[in-house]
Amino acid sequence: MAGNTFGNLFKLTTFGESHGVAIGGVLDGCPAGIKIDLDAVQHELNRRKPGQSSIVTQRKEPDTVEFFSGIFDGKTTGTPIGFAIRNTNQKSNDYSHIKDSYRPSHADYVYDQKYGFRDYRGGGRSSARETASRVVAGAIAKQFLSSIKINAFVSQVGDLRLEKHYQDLDLSLTESNPVRCPDPEMARQMEAYIKEVRKEGDTVGGVITGVAQHVPIGLGEPVFDKLHAELGKAMLSINAVKGFEYGSGFEGVKMKGSAHNDQFNSDGSTKTNYSGGIQGGISNGMDIYFNIAFKPVATVIQGYETIDKEGNTVQTKGKGRHDPCVVPRAVPIVEAMTALVLADYSLLNRTIKL
Amino acid sequence: MAGNTFGNLFKLTTFGESHGVAIGGVLDGCPAGIKIDLDAVQHELNRRKPGQSSIVTQRKEPDTVEFFSGIFDGKTTGTPIGFAIRNTNQKSNDYSHIKDSYRPSHADYVYDQKYGFRDYRGGGRSSARETASRVVAGAIAKQFLSSIKINAFVSQVGDLRLEKHYQDLDLSLTESNPVRCPDPEMARQMEAYIKEVRKEGDTVGGVITGVAQHVPIGLGEPVFDKLHAELGKAMLSINAVKGFEYGSGFEGVKMKGSAHNDQFNSDGSTKTNYSGGIQGGISNGMDIYFNIAFKPVATVIQGYETIDKEGNTVQTKGKGRHDPCVVPRAVPIVEAMTALVLADYSLLNRTIKL
Amino acid sequence: MAGNTFGNLFKLTTFGESHGVAIGGVLDGCPAGIKIDLDAVQHELNRRKPGQSSIVTQRKEPDTVEFFSGIFDGKTTGTPIGFAIRNTNQKSNDYSHIKDSYRPSHADYVYDQKYGFRDYRGGGRSSARETASRVVAGAIAKQFLSSIKINAFVSQVGDLRLEKHYQDLDLSLTESNPVRCPDPEMARQMEAYIKEVRKEGDTVGGVITGVAQHVPIGLGEPVFDKLHAELGKAMLSINAVKGFEYGSGFEGVKMKGSAHNDQFNSDGSTKTNYSGGIQGGISNGMDIYFNIAFKPVATVIQGYETIDKEGNTVQTKGKGRHDPCVVPRAVPIVEAMTALVLADYSLLNRTIKL
Amino acid sequence: MAGNTFGNLFKLTTFGESHGVAIGGVLDGCPAGIKIDLDAVQHELNRRKPGQSSIVTQRKEPDTVEFFSGIFDGKTTGTPIGFAIRNTNQKSNDYSHIKDSYRPSHADYVYDQKYGFRDYRGGGRSSARETASRVVAGAIAKQFLSSIKINAFVSQVGDLRLEKHYQDLDLSLTESNPVRCPDPEMARQMEAYIKEVRKEGDTVGGVITGVAQHVPIGLGEPVFDKLHAELGKAMLSINAVKGFEYGSGFEGVKMKGSAHNDQFNSDGSTKTNYSGGIQGGISNGMDIYFNIAFKPVATVIQGYETIDKEGNTVQTKGKGRHDPCVVPRAVPIVEAMTALVLADYSLLNRTIKL
Repeated sequence: MAGNTFGNLFKLTTFGESHGVAIGGVLDGCPAGIKIDLDAVQHELNRRKPGQSSIVTQRKEPDTVEFFSGIFDGKTTGTPIGFAIRNTNQKSNDYSHIKDSYRPSHADYVYDQKYGFRDYRGGGRSSARETASRVVAGAIAKQFLSSIKINAFVSQVGDLRLEKHYQDLDLSLTESNPVRCPDPEMARQMEAYIKEVRKEGDTVGGVITGVAQHVPIGLGEPVFDKLHAELGKAMLSINAVKGFEYGSGFEGVKMKGSAHNDQFNSDGSTKTNYSGGIQGGISNGMDIYFNIAFKPVATVIQGYETIDKEGNTVQTKGKGRHDPCVVPRAVPIVEAMTALVLADYSLLNRTIKL
Repeated sequence: MAGNTFGNLFKLTTFGESHGVAIGGVLDGCPAGIKIDLDAVQHELNRRKPGQSSIVTQRKEPDTVEFFSGIFDGKTTGTPIGFAIRNTNQKSNDYSHIKDSYRPSHADYVYDQKYGFRDYRGGGRSSARETASRVVAGAIAKQFLSSIKINAFVSQVGDLRLEKHYQDLDLSLTESNPVRCPDPEMARQMEAYIKEVRKEGDTVGGVITGVAQHVPIGLGEPVFDKLHAELGKAMLSINAVKGFEYGSGFEGVKMKGSAHNDQFNSDGSTKTNYSGGIQGGISNGMDIYFNIAFKPVATVIQGYETIDKEGNTVQTKGKGRHDPCVVPRAVPIVEAMTALVLADYSLLNRTIKL
Repeated sequence: MAGNTFGNLFKLTTFGESHGVAIGGVLDGCPAGIKIDLDAVQHELNRRKPGQSSIVTQRKEPDTVEFFSGIFDGKTTGTPIGFAIRNTNQKSNDYSHIKDSYRPSHADYVYDQKYGFRDYRGGGRSSARETASRVVAGAIAKQFLSSIKINAFVSQVGDLRLEKHYQDLDLSLTESNPVRCPDPEMARQMEAYIKEVRKEGDTVGGVITGVAQHVPIGLGEPVFDKLHAELGKAMLSINAVKGFEYGSGFEGVKMKGSAHNDQFNSDGSTKTNYSGGIQGGISNGMDIYFNIAFKPVATVIQGYETIDKEGNTVQTKGKGRHDPCVVPRAVPIVEAMTALVLADYSLLNRTIKL
Repeated sequence: MAGNTFGNLFKLTTFGESHGVAIGGVLDGCPAGIKIDLDAVQHELNRRKPGQSSIVTQRKEPDTVEFFSGIFDGKTTGTPIGFAIRNTNQKSNDYSHIKDSYRPSHADYVYDQKYGFRDYRGGGRSSARETASRVVAGAIAKQFLSSIKINAFVSQVGDLRLEKHYQDLDLSLTESNPVRCPDPEMARQMEAYIKEVRKEGDTVGGVITGVAQHVPIGLGEPVFDKLHAELGKAMLSINAVKGFEYGSGFEGVKMKGSAHNDQFNSDGSTKTNYSGGIQGGISNGMDIYFNIAFKPVATVIQGYETIDKEGNTVQTKGKGRHDPCVVPRAVPIVEAMTALVLADYSLLNRTIKL
């Protein structure tokens, strides 16, 4: 209930602070008999890890996952999969300056207010480092869902917005550049812009688009647990996310019903897909696609004014090694959360008919 | 797990099809000792009910709620509050035309695929009629949260968008017009536009803005159950919703961190509120505000082509009495879901400290 | 979380006080496509209802269930099944004498202490009347589990204990007498004893034995949700239950492992069944059997001394129409709870393998 | 849902197989601000660990717990407490003889049937080694519940039954002997008997009595989550447990209501305590006490006949180092589960009143 568990049947519980001993998790409810490719898991972690390119934080963390249980003879056993990633590069000294003051638009202030005190080192539990555990579990979910294709990519950085629809892009190009934008020209512009922002000691926001293809018809539970409601919650739970829309999204509100309705083909597929692959909260077999808004990273290296615990004004500035823009490293996290939702709802969907 | 329950501690389970005997619910976990104003509950239901103005569906349903339990001597007892609303105006004949065919962008097709068959009368469980039960529970949640002020209003209908920020509006005017837009001039334009669309036998989408004020600091659980993640799920679970954003939302991605960061005042409040009252998933005492995108209603009265169960093309058109635009009646639903989330997270927050 | 929901996937939420408007519930997660025999549901309710014989309470309640939703064309639709049973025979006056005093070994005192006040009429939510809702849901679960045979019977009343093992009894005789003991001679003795106790204005306890046959291998989840742990919780949640044992139970502690171990036959069945059909928390295909201890009903008609809200001693005596022994009417409740557990665990078991 | 999580708000998820890399868990929902005495945690683990005396298994496992998160500056932070205990003494070779055959009354057969295959080394997930993780979490729960006194002790081994009521015993003597029976004379007899049984290569069952004192009034949720129902589930989830009774238990069924009812003193306490400290599922402030039946350990060192995967009869015998009687080492486990239930229900009870 304290909010560190995600999923109903395919259920991930994570633990760990950014500067504690380790982060990790327990994935419970993963069906028995899935062949696990551990290299593929580590590969996903590497996509998320710091230091992978010149436009992300230059911290060096190997982010090597150790599995404790639940996998035997190369296959999942149906028992909980416990795992941990040691924190090896934590420089707690980087954070002594924030021990007694509150960084604007961070969680420092609310943690102190809520719990009475906080592990102030690097954001502690509120650090995006926690998402590495999601990537581990998501990588296992992807292997369970091998017939579903899940892709995410960067579609906007600051004002630079990729106007092409995902169907007009070659998503295999996403990993070909450090921004993770599948349009090479736009990727170059975004990269240049991120570097410029970093030089200013500033940060900028962005949008990630997620796409899930070959999703079977029928995933999603009526009423409160609609598939897109759970996807939305999954995405909104990622650090720095401010918005979620699927299918026609916010643009769709301007349309009329006669134009927005997706007419059927005789096989049940639809001629258009404003629905975004979900109708009445249930997947209809068409592609599921959605956009996620990420705010600019709160840690800026520029000097700024803030308050300490007593409310006194203090001058400070960001230290340490931070991302100027969060979206490139968030792509694998979005894919992981998508996989976790689809794995969970696949299991739920096994129980709904005689 | 079948998706008809919302909340962790303040927990609503709903039941009922639009054309069955009754809809209703059980509200469990409502604390003991809350004085319940039953008229206020019915008042909220009346704000949602059909036939209340010329721009909404002309169905007549009294939507009178009967409470079965959990209230004694005018106060909640701490035991589950069971309630039902009889369906009195169902004209099942209105739906015989869709028994064997699938309305585009409705849930007909996916329900048949998922469950093997469906209660085809009026959408059954997928009908927005279900939300009346949420309004009942939300009205009780509001009484529990009496010190928090929850307001929702229509901020966009089709292209007509209210550019004013909620702080520049007099929210007490929301109920002064059938659109539920607190800007009288914009309300007039929206009303005229909805009537025009209705004349065409068509429908149009819209946006509702929600605002919660005087929310105590500390609501929201770290990581997966961030306050805005749960709010997002709550809103995305409402029929026809396609998107959710809070605080700076999708616009915020264009900003730089130095501008987007909310600088502190000495009392812990912030000079700006791009965070939308939530930092790190936890309320910080500032106003919580968010936007919700609603697609155009799928039932259009114009003739259209669709398929039957065998995949044959059939000509049909919408019958019955439908809303040309869903947002005016959705305002109390948005408020109800907001109240349910805040009530639940208020209870959760009682358990987090020694 | 307030304790009115049972089950993970096949999930019953009940509501209602004994002297409120109605009791009832919502059964969520019942798979679609089950043909529902409504007479069979009412039949189970009739087995539990007051006034059915001379050895139970003489209150007259028709206990007629009304279904609101979730059943269409005679089959479950996969949506929540809402239902209610009106309270028609409540004589609240019978309870005015306990408004301000506390009956010994009832829940009056603890409810007042926990919630600050209580619905004092007939025990309110703590009345065993609540179990009628369980019987409704259990009757549906039985229809879902049609290949599993669930039987409960009275095996002890006071000192009168049926020494025969369930395998040496003809369980079809259970309903042939008002005690619901399948041994006719013992049933006669028990009936006579209950009548004697009633004449004294007193009450007596008893034991019910439950048996589930043809349970598939594999039901039960490792560690915390072992099948017998959930069965135990289910039974201990029934009013007046003080103990639960399965298989060899408390007697088994005296045995040595070499004698207690159930040796295998070549088909995986076992030569003995001290395990009670469950090993490591998982059903092994053998009969599941268990005993449940019920304390003597707390409401005695004899005069007794107790305290009022201020702690003053008051003289009072039981009024109204009460059961001298709870076990005959509890037999269908035990069967219902068994069915709910097995239905839930059958659904869970669909999700555990690739 | 896969059964590896216990608790609603104070919530433990465990992972790990007996012969995998490590066992451990995540304790989520532990309130912030509890001072943690890590030595006290290790002390509880030592009470459970193998090799501690001559009447338990002679395996040597240091059972040293490593905490990963959730504790900072010696206090809980309100974030999840992740921990692990490395498996250091696993001798997998001890188990090669059971790879393809099924030990009677173990979980080998049902795991293979349920999941399709199993980690056969030492029982894997079904090993009682898992309970070490419960002891860790229970030790933290005890520190949270510092004002409640929780004691368990051995009250029966085979036929040797301590007839004294817990109130007539000096519970501080429990740890003075390897059996953990607070009656020195009975402890001596039990110890001698266990040694005799071990010499025979056999095993024997036993009973543990649990007592919780100074429990506040009001813990327990009505209907399905009665305090004793959750306690019962907690205990029944411990390996080898076959029965649970509280208060008057199975003996109470023989009593009449007039004798069994606990008459009030003027302060709300009761003159007798047949209720076992719980009425209507809610603690009434009196001592909570209960008995738990443990079957004889299934692993006997004597030779026996069993079947292999193909159903062929094979001759085998137990190898390795096993407990001749499980109850001495199960005492801290019973205390841990008691603490987990009371911690969880203490938090739940914070949410039930305005």
